[in-house]
Amino acid sequence: MSLRSVKGTRDFGPKEYKKRKWVMDTIRSVYDLYGFNPLETPAMENIEVLEGKYGDEGEQLIFRVLNSGDFAKDIDSTDTKSIRKSISENGLRYDLTIPFARYLVNNRSNITLPFKRYQIQPVWRADRPQKGRYREFYQCDIDVAGSNSLITEAEILTIITQVLDKLGIEDYSVKLNNRKILKGLAEFAGCSDVLMATSLDKLDKIGEEKVKEEMVLNGIENADLVFKTLKSINKDINDNVKLGFEEIEKVIKYVDSLGGDLEKIEFDPTLARGLNYYTGCIFEVKINGVSIGSVGGGGRYDNLTSLFGWDGVSGVGFSFGLDRLCDCLEELKLFPEFKEETYLILNFGDEDYCLDILRSFREKGIKTQIFPERAKIQKQMKWANDNDISYVIICGDKEKENSEYVLKNMSTGEQKSIKWGI
Amino acid sequence: MSLRSVKGTRDFGPKEYKKRKWVMDTIRSVYDLYGFNPLETPAMENIEVLEGKYGDEGEQLIFRVLNSGDFAKDIDSTDTKSIRKSISENGLRYDLTIPFARYLVNNRSNITLPFKRYQIQPVWRADRPQKGRYREFYQCDIDVAGSNSLITEAEILTIITQVLDKLGIEDYSVKLNNRKILKGLAEFAGCSDVLMATSLDKLDKIGEEKVKEEMVLNGIENADLVFKTLKSINKDINDNVKLGFEEIEKVIKYVDSLGGDLEKIEFDPTLARGLNYYTGCIFEVKINGVSIGSVGGGGRYDNLTSLFGWDGVSGVGFSFGLDRLCDCLEELKLFPEFKEETYLILNFGDEDYCLDILRSFREKGIKTQIFPERAKIQKQMKWANDNDISYVIICGDKEKENSEYVLKNMSTGEQKSIKWGI
Repeated sequence: MSLRSVKGTRDFGPKEYKKRKWVMDTIRSVYDLYGFNPLETPAMENIEVLEGKYGDEGEQLIFRVLNSGDFAKDIDSTDTKSIRKSISENGLRYDLTIPFARYLVNNRSNITLPFKRYQIQPVWRADRPQKGRYREFYQCDIDVAGSNSLITEAEILTIITQVLDKLGIEDYSVKLNNRKILKGLAEFAGCSDVLMATSLDKLDKIGEEKVKEEMVLNGIENADLVFKTLKSINKDINDNVKLGFEEIEKVIKYVDSLGGDLEKIEFDPTLARGLNYYTGCIFEVKINGVSIGSVGGGGRYDNLTSLFGWDGVSGVGFSFGLDRLCDCLEELKLFPEFKEETYLILNFGDEDYCLDILRSFREKGIKTQIFPERAKIQKQMKWANDNDISYVIICGDKEKENSEYVLKNMSTGEQKSIKWGI
Repeated sequence: MSLRSVKGTRDFGPKEYKKRKWVMDTIRSVYDLYGFNPLETPAMENIEVLEGKYGDEGEQLIFRVLNSGDFAKDIDSTDTKSIRKSISENGLRYDLTIPFARYLVNNRSNITLPFKRYQIQPVWRADRPQKGRYREFYQCDIDVAGSNSLITEAEILTIITQVLDKLGIEDYSVKLNNRKILKGLAEFAGCSDVLMATSLDKLDKIGEEKVKEEMVLNGIENADLVFKTLKSINKDINDNVKLGFEEIEKVIKYVDSLGGDLEKIEFDPTLARGLNYYTGCIFEVKINGVSIGSVGGGGRYDNLTSLFGWDGVSGVGFSFGLDRLCDCLEELKLFPEFKEETYLILNFGDEDYCLDILRSFREKGIKTQIFPERAKIQKQMKWANDNDISYVIICGDKEKENSEYVLKNMSTGEQKSIKWGI
């Protein structure tokens, strides 16, 4: 039996946990400051909630949960797809956006728009695991639903720069584009904007030549023109392009007022974002100087809740990938040291005396423990070292007699006697 | 399509989230203070890790995850159990104890015993949902692995009373028993201790008469004697009973030294705890005056890691059920009010001026937001009310002219002008 965690998933021991918690708490504190409210949804969703939302490729990656009980009788086919349907009613959530949209529509009557929420939870994808790609990973989402104001885009961009600033990441860029520009460009080039965006989205991965080839394969004959125009794009091409530019300019102005780091925000007309539901500004965060630099993305969508029957709710969303952020911080050696002051009472003397001291330390809120059984000092000191203990307390019979204890600093080795209980 | 969360699972909006977070943070703070270290494991485990650990009834309740890819070809049976085996390699974790044991054994070479960990994560069970029973719920586990010392039991009991004290719960009891007492009693009555414990465990639910009937059905002929002895049990019955009593007395003494609330700890010779792996002290927490009062349990096990091939690691563990704790706090109306000071800048004037004020509030760390678009004052005030805003800030053209803003207290209605930016 393998005792490893399931392929593409990881255990997080104390050291990793503390790093991850620090990143999550940092993100949460900024989301909080900006007036976003927390939401949590269950790991499982009804499969109809998830189906038809992530494209064919995405849908393959949904983890499906087997119905409980005797399901064999429900199998009346030899086709995987049909069998799946008949034996699995639920799936693990694939992202936090769709559960949020479901929640919004389900709570429609109690919600006063605009609704600002954040959500920090794991998601699951049956993807082939590789560097920077996990089967269980945390997303840190914020969304504002129900507002057309471009202040929303600006707030989210400002939040992004403030989170990264708080995490100590300096060398990064937030790429910014607008789907209206891409739409206008597609009009100009006489091709489908969706197909164009789908191909452009791969630019980082496969390069310009391959993107052009794919465009031509998809019936975009003048791929050369698309690229030529992209390189010297200006707002006079047509109304959609113009509108896109105007939105970007306005957003940039708001970001400046809100105190976001404008130097990090970079207009990139080739940014496309894979998902079809974006309709306005789109953005993506890339950390420079690391192997997997893309740590988050988002944009404006006009019809997210329409999927579940609530029309006319425009919103803006963004998601940080926690695991990738942590990978980047690790690679850049940017994690602070989380050295807490912890105390260990050695156990080789009067247990009553030890427990009295232990109790009084804890009553002062000091993280203290006792080695649970009497053991050789070497064994206890090794444990203290292995467990990053800052101070060891010695309170044997001799110390009890003198109403004192000995405090030993584990980094310096310095020892001193301290009077106790007088 | 149903837009509800999956049966037996729940969405947690801002209000519920804050309550749950408060309970989790309270538990975590005590676990931390006592020197326990955090661990997180993935939601999915290899199915062999989960199988054979929870008895037949438990095993039925494991949620299994369908293999991805084309699995139809792997189906060569019409029997649910065999099909399940061939199409599902992973399952959702059923508790946090087994993943902890797997983690321990997998990291055996890097761990210096005793190992103290806590783990606060959701678990999933395909149980029939009812009051106090969910399909997704959080457990808050602590375990010490690799120590025989009874100080460990005492620390965990002390932690329990301190957590409940911090949560403001006063009327509860921690029932305490020892499996050695039950073992000795079974010897005395000449029956199987496992069968006796299994039946006794149902005492709360089905009552003495039904338990006796079940015992007789299970071949425990002198069920009457068992109950008679239970009611006036004393340590002189035999060695095992004596040992059990001695352990309990020692634990109680330690709890006293450690500052645990002894008044809440109650010896209960009928306490059995369902799981077979307990070997020493066992305990269960029951909150009085509520419908579902059992909010946690645990005990000493001698061979938890033996399941995965590591013998001789004795441990003690305990788990609080977060969801039941929250249900009890709700029923007893013990949740504090989580009223934060939040500010909303109304939007019907000069946006630049509004954004300047917004930025400066946030720079001071004050949770502030702006209504994203210009709208009628009634609409914005309704939003402020619905979203529990504490103060509304009015900074229109008139205020800008006078370099001030108006601050309105939403609970008292009081308004005052405050000078700005001089």
